[in-house]
Amino acid sequence: MEQKRMAGVKATEYIKDGMILGLGTGSTAYYMIERVGEMVKKGLKIQAVATSESTTRLANQFMIPLVSIDEVKEIDLVIDGVDEIDPDFNAIKGGGGALFREKMVAKVAKEVIWIMDSSKTVDALGAFPLPVEILPYGYQHIMARLERLQYNPKLRRNNKEIYITDNHNYIADLWIEKPLKVKEVEEKLKNITGVLETGLFLNLCDRIIIGNDTGVKIIENTKK
Amino acid sequence: MEQKRMAGVKATEYIKDGMILGLGTGSTAYYMIERVGEMVKKGLKIQAVATSESTTRLANQFMIPLVSIDEVKEIDLVIDGVDEIDPDFNAIKGGGGALFREKMVAKVAKEVIWIMDSSKTVDALGAFPLPVEILPYGYQHIMARLERLQYNPKLRRNNKEIYITDNHNYIADLWIEKPLKVKEVEEKLKNITGVLETGLFLNLCDRIIIGNDTGVKIIENTKK
Repeated sequence: MEQKRMAGVKATEYIKDGMILGLGTGSTAYYMIERVGEMVKKGLKIQAVATSESTTRLANQFMIPLVSIDEVKEIDLVIDGVDEIDPDFNAIKGGGGALFREKMVAKVAKEVIWIMDSSKTVDALGAFPLPVEILPYGYQHIMARLERLQYNPKLRRNNKEIYITDNHNYIADLWIEKPLKVKEVEEKLKNITGVLETGLFLNLCDRIIIGNDTGVKIIENTKK
Repeated sequence: MEQKRMAGVKATEYIKDGMILGLGTGSTAYYMIERVGEMVKKGLKIQAVATSESTTRLANQFMIPLVSIDEVKEIDLVIDGVDEIDPDFNAIKGGGGALFREKMVAKVAKEVIWIMDSSKTVDALGAFPLPVEILPYGYQHIMARLERLQYNPKLRRNNKEIYITDNHNYIADLWIEKPLKVKEVEEKLKNITGVLETGLFLNLCDRIIIGNDTGVKIIENTKK
């Protein structure tokens, strides 16, 4: 918890007056959003785009002024969490189910910062399942296709009900054999009719901030 | 009208008792569905999967027994229309807005027949705009991306309201400069976050049936 908090708070130092800010989703993003709320209370002038309905609720609670992604031309900075990330800045995101909106915001943003605790940095992706957002119409056939690719898909559920995303779709969590060939997997998944988006975020960030036992470590991505 | 009717009726000769049948969407598919209704009335035993809400209504009207795509393992035969098709059996579909469900059904089906009047066969695609289904969240940014690719997107409207698909998404109609490099365009479009599916149906049919002034012409696709 403390590592996540430290990373989230550190990232807010990159926020400047007048920015359009993208707010991520999840437990690490929570601490960042909480701090942004404090900064807004003290007079910071920003507008924020939320990456999920749950982040929208949080932002409202912390009195952060929100704007729709389609009302802004650009997003200056997005701060978001990851499920895991490798040394090439390839990440898996979407454990919280918000992968589509998170990816849309990350692709629109001028600058992307990912925040995390030290358990999230890995040598190779694949400890976490890879979530993909799939359409409800035909989902059994999409699942069958993912099975044939030997991606071991599991339809995400919320207790016994099928989990529904903010875009009214389903999530399939893929347990793909390691090592994950990220580019090949991404390409194959994107070519399946009914797969809206994947949780693979390949080299999409400019900087990562990792909370650890002694403080935070900041790594700039010079390869983007 | 007569050409469409002849093609639609001819296609129903391929329907056999016990089949799971995919029912297309649009003005040519209408005649096929009407005939299927007559055949069911006379005792044909089939179950049908509809590719749109409008086809669902038509099937109900003609008392054709419907089943959800996710209740069937396979679809035996789908009969659907096209907006235009080239000599390599590459087609543009989606003028009616049902492209996603039509593509899902076509990909699941064991056999695909496309029906059309003689105006739909072209030497090269591109007289029709290419529809793509896009997500409402971030649509302005998706449109901007399509603009930057010089695909001249136009957001489809129904009178003044934005047109909404059966999947609660939007349609962008692309006016791409001819000749259309179909594989390149398909790949670029599928890689855009927020593009759910395109109206390019590349070599996805087994047979086409073209109504013309003297009757119908049937062309088997030996390249699939």
